[in-house]
Amino acid sequence: MTDAQGAAGWVDYRPEIKIVDCTIRDGGLMNNHRFGIDLVRAVVAACGVGGIDFVELGYKGSRSFFEGDFGPWKFCSEDDLKRATEGIEDLPGISVMADVGRTDYHTDIVPADQSPVDMVRIACYIHQVPGALEMIKDAADKGYRTCVNLMALSTVKESELLSALELFAASPVGAVYVVDSFGALYGEQVRRYVRLFLDQVGESGKDVGIHAHNNQQLAFANSIEAIVNGANFIDGSLAGFGRGAGNCQTELLAGFLHNPQYKLRPLLRCIQDHIEPLRKDLRWGFDIPYMLLGLLNQHPRTAIAFNEGDQHGDYVAFHDQVIGEE
Amino acid sequence: MTDAQGAAGWVDYRPEIKIVDCTIRDGGLMNNHRFGIDLVRAVVAACGVGGIDFVELGYKGSRSFFEGDFGPWKFCSEDDLKRATEGIEDLPGISVMADVGRTDYHTDIVPADQSPVDMVRIACYIHQVPGALEMIKDAADKGYRTCVNLMALSTVKESELLSALELFAASPVGAVYVVDSFGALYGEQVRRYVRLFLDQVGESGKDVGIHAHNNQQLAFANSIEAIVNGANFIDGSLAGFGRGAGNCQTELLAGFLHNPQYKLRPLLRCIQDHIEPLRKDLRWGFDIPYMLLGLLNQHPRTAIAFNEGDQHGDYVAFHDQVIGEE
Repeated sequence: MTDAQGAAGWVDYRPEIKIVDCTIRDGGLMNNHRFGIDLVRAVVAACGVGGIDFVELGYKGSRSFFEGDFGPWKFCSEDDLKRATEGIEDLPGISVMADVGRTDYHTDIVPADQSPVDMVRIACYIHQVPGALEMIKDAADKGYRTCVNLMALSTVKESELLSALELFAASPVGAVYVVDSFGALYGEQVRRYVRLFLDQVGESGKDVGIHAHNNQQLAFANSIEAIVNGANFIDGSLAGFGRGAGNCQTELLAGFLHNPQYKLRPLLRCIQDHIEPLRKDLRWGFDIPYMLLGLLNQHPRTAIAFNEGDQHGDYVAFHDQVIGEE
Repeated sequence: MTDAQGAAGWVDYRPEIKIVDCTIRDGGLMNNHRFGIDLVRAVVAACGVGGIDFVELGYKGSRSFFEGDFGPWKFCSEDDLKRATEGIEDLPGISVMADVGRTDYHTDIVPADQSPVDMVRIACYIHQVPGALEMIKDAADKGYRTCVNLMALSTVKESELLSALELFAASPVGAVYVVDSFGALYGEQVRRYVRLFLDQVGESGKDVGIHAHNNQQLAFANSIEAIVNGANFIDGSLAGFGRGAGNCQTELLAGFLHNPQYKLRPLLRCIQDHIEPLRKDLRWGFDIPYMLLGLLNQHPRTAIAFNEGDQHGDYVAFHDQVIGEE
């Protein structure tokens, strides 16, 4: 409790910690991935100058799996990825996400030396682990860094989780993520997960990551908890941009981590000029309906629908819908 | 990591934990304590039905110390306190705060059996500890529960803090608060403070409390950290209502603490009907200028002034004002 441990006194940093900014990828869940190229390039450039390690631009989805009208960042063609990145100085690492079962990855993910992409992150639910392992191997063989994001972790049984971690440890994946899809985890639970993950995959040289949501205003705190317990890949988004309650804020991470490579000013400039202007159409961020579903460990979709409807702001009506009238 | 430890699995609770709702008291810092009696009674009634242990209505300031125009909750006359509470079923405990040096406490704080007030909380800075001790003794002698809130803790040197805690341990005070006035503390620091406070005053039978601000979106997480480490008095406000980035949200605390006495529905009803309608005039809650001052361990006043001015939303300008242009 010396002054050096005061608020201004977290003087050290771990250079191996990486921030992965998901503004465009996770934000795309709000507008079917219809961002204009100028916005995408502004985020890439700002994160680059701001020292952010990776920027995730969207999904490597394959069109044959989707009906309906989506913007380009649902599919991340190599042409679009080049348009998003070419000519940008201080280019951060570029990441894409690929969902198990929604991509012809053999053909749609090209060899790394033919792409601006540096990292492929495989997203899967617990029942999709075998598919994830095939995609990890494919991407690693093509020369990419890889991560696996095991979604909805707060609903997974421990026995199945241990099996999955054993398989990931034996795979070529670079990092395994604790994903709090429902914003339902408290810090103590994050600590246990991160330690469990590190126990299971750390000896194989894998990193552990955290992807937090802000349903209970714990996204940043849970990310800190993960960092303190050894997680090295930390997801965020500018202004917390993302569906529902949104994500851990990249600028909070950059402020907290004292690595001098992180610069707040270009991040704030981008938020001010490009992200906040989106708020009036794409509402996001903490709100009581998301809090209630976080408490219940449920997917935020019913709260998102509620907030888009006429009853927006009627917290009691949503309470009665999901919890009952007590 | 069994299912019982999952998000829905925090099944136990500590009945000795008390929530102190500061909606009216801390919110009053935004409007010079000018709340109408209907709003105040609505908050008291909702917190009562919602099982909240204490509601703090304002300051026991004495008019002779203040110039200018303030509403009634700056002074909390016994008449106003009676108007705020009489006839309300399920009345929660009633609390008032008194600042050292701003109250003629000998006369303005009446004996407890003549007042609706149950608890007097003395707020002081480190250089005011002797004055706080006199006020604690006065209030305790008059029959009140007492707390002492040592403000701006993140700026206090450890040697002075230890002396203060020694004096509090020997006083009749009921609880000693960790007050993160600047929203500058991280969870690890809260943990150290709470443990230090308990080490110093716990054997004398004192409780430890936490009063958190949300400058870095850590108010709720820091409150949990304090609870887990033994704090029993937890401050919040409905919808985080409070100056600047605001406070820990009472409804988040009520959801987290599994004590069945806490009911979310009446709290949400009050937020919806009485607190959220205030937002368009009294902006509060997390915003990047507060984050920057939290990072810098500074009082939020310059951010509050900035957000009230024409440059509101110009994060880069505020960054350059407080940090420089890098």
